[in-house]
Amino acid sequence: MAIAIPTSEELLQAHNAIAPYIHNTAVVTSKTLNQMSGASLFFKCENFQRMGAFKMRGATSAILALSANERERGVVTHSSGNFGQAVALAAKELGVPAYVVMPENAPEVKKAAVKGYGATVTECESTIHAREAAAAAIQEETGASPLHPSNCTNVIVGNATAAMELLSEQPNLDVLCAPVGGGGLLAGTALAGRFFGKNCKTFGGEPQQVDDAYRSLQSGIIETNTSTNTIADGLRTHLGDQNFPIIQQHVEDIICVSEAQIISAMKLIWERMKIIVEPSSAVALAAILKEKERFKNKQVGIIISGGNVTLSALPFS
Amino acid sequence: MAIAIPTSEELLQAHNAIAPYIHNTAVVTSKTLNQMSGASLFFKCENFQRMGAFKMRGATSAILALSANERERGVVTHSSGNFGQAVALAAKELGVPAYVVMPENAPEVKKAAVKGYGATVTECESTIHAREAAAAAIQEETGASPLHPSNCTNVIVGNATAAMELLSEQPNLDVLCAPVGGGGLLAGTALAGRFFGKNCKTFGGEPQQVDDAYRSLQSGIIETNTSTNTIADGLRTHLGDQNFPIIQQHVEDIICVSEAQIISAMKLIWERMKIIVEPSSAVALAAILKEKERFKNKQVGIIISGGNVTLSALPFS
Repeated sequence: MAIAIPTSEELLQAHNAIAPYIHNTAVVTSKTLNQMSGASLFFKCENFQRMGAFKMRGATSAILALSANERERGVVTHSSGNFGQAVALAAKELGVPAYVVMPENAPEVKKAAVKGYGATVTECESTIHAREAAAAAIQEETGASPLHPSNCTNVIVGNATAAMELLSEQPNLDVLCAPVGGGGLLAGTALAGRFFGKNCKTFGGEPQQVDDAYRSLQSGIIETNTSTNTIADGLRTHLGDQNFPIIQQHVEDIICVSEAQIISAMKLIWERMKIIVEPSSAVALAAILKEKERFKNKQVGIIISGGNVTLSALPFS
Repeated sequence: MAIAIPTSEELLQAHNAIAPYIHNTAVVTSKTLNQMSGASLFFKCENFQRMGAFKMRGATSAILALSANERERGVVTHSSGNFGQAVALAAKELGVPAYVVMPENAPEVKKAAVKGYGATVTECESTIHAREAAAAAIQEETGASPLHPSNCTNVIVGNATAAMELLSEQPNLDVLCAPVGGGGLLAGTALAGRFFGKNCKTFGGEPQQVDDAYRSLQSGIIETNTSTNTIADGLRTHLGDQNFPIIQQHVEDIICVSEAQIISAMKLIWERMKIIVEPSSAVALAAILKEKERFKNKQVGIIISGGNVTLSALPFS
């Protein structure tokens, strides 16, 4: 089945629709990081977004796309991370019931955050099968609409709005770079670059340990990972059939980085820019620094995906 | 000897003079912290200032106030912390030789930062006597002008510019709150509040463990501390004869907070605002939260003094 790739009008509509519910987050720069990279870097700070990550954009966009009847029955998702919190908060803002399936071993602080936004939390075993089964049972029982964190057009157009805002502040960007995990952020970013940039090329940054997106672009089919051994916990998932065609068509390249490069880039951002970012967010900077000859003297927009970290378990020694 | 308290014109001149060399730092807000405090909080982010702290303002202002002859001979200071870095960077920007005396047990990263800005570093024993003696010897030998980090009018008027910028964005602040250690930031903030606020009252936040400023306001003379047992390493010093009269005249009150309250406020800022602040910076928020009934429904400006922390030694468990 052919995939309908979103149009520029659909991106603009999504931005208008979600604007009242999200922050137009700050764009920050660092002389030191510009010197280190040889490029002009513009960081779009989705760590300052509501609930601390860009996921708020896609969750809001997806719920707003539902009909009044669907909204009444609610939404259901399974997540151990930011998307569960985003769905809970967006649903609360829009007066929609939310059901979030979380693995029983998810951090208590994340369960508390989701419950704090008023969502109904269902705990299950920490396997993808158990999570999908629990979500399906809730869907069956309540009629709630399932929301996928990355493989859904309405989420992708919501995610695109971060890069749209960045390009409206910095219209001459030569490059956009975003981390790639499930592919929803990278696909949205690439669409924004294509529609609203001036010959702006989009790159993905990916941990070498989970380089499924890189291999998928090489092979032409959606590859999966056999391990999830990366500190970038937001990037352990693989691409989906809704975002892969967009990435194939509109992403210039995916640059894979080591765990040491991720931690080093994260430390640079914390120490030099004084902002708190997740390991996943540092992957995009790590990619630019790894291949800096390629980006020399370019204007580079980097999507900082989020800032939700456990302060008692940081990778700095 | 009577102290000449700086005028509003002197503050404006200082701001004009240093503006090309400093960042007009961002002012950020947090819905969550507003809800927790019952007030509207506006954080002036000097952690985003050049070299990571407000000290860049006072150091630049003090060097600009020197004559051409004095500048040629250079400046000397002793510091284990932010002021040494600020003097080194400001001197570099202004083409002035800088000599920084640092205790031999200062972190290598701080020594490297000062050297990286081109200053001459002299190491000495970690006592105040050894530091002062080393600085005096350099002054004797080179003719360099000594710069005190907090007890100097030209530093105080430079420090005032952070609150001036905050008030120019938020002219209706009822309250300003800054941490107090040596007193240079609090004195400058209080002058800015008096001259450029509308009936705006300035409060200091101080660690209970080093409550010399609180006791000085009570007794009317400059008190000292017998211990320096606080995580807020920027606040272990005592007031000076140049800033104490300003604090006496223009500061409404000093609120003392426990170590636990400082760490809790620091964690709130890191987790909720996603910005990196020093323990000293968290003292001002801790003070507002401790006596929140007093600040209910007020517009409160908080000076975030800096963000230079050692990431491998954080107080979060």
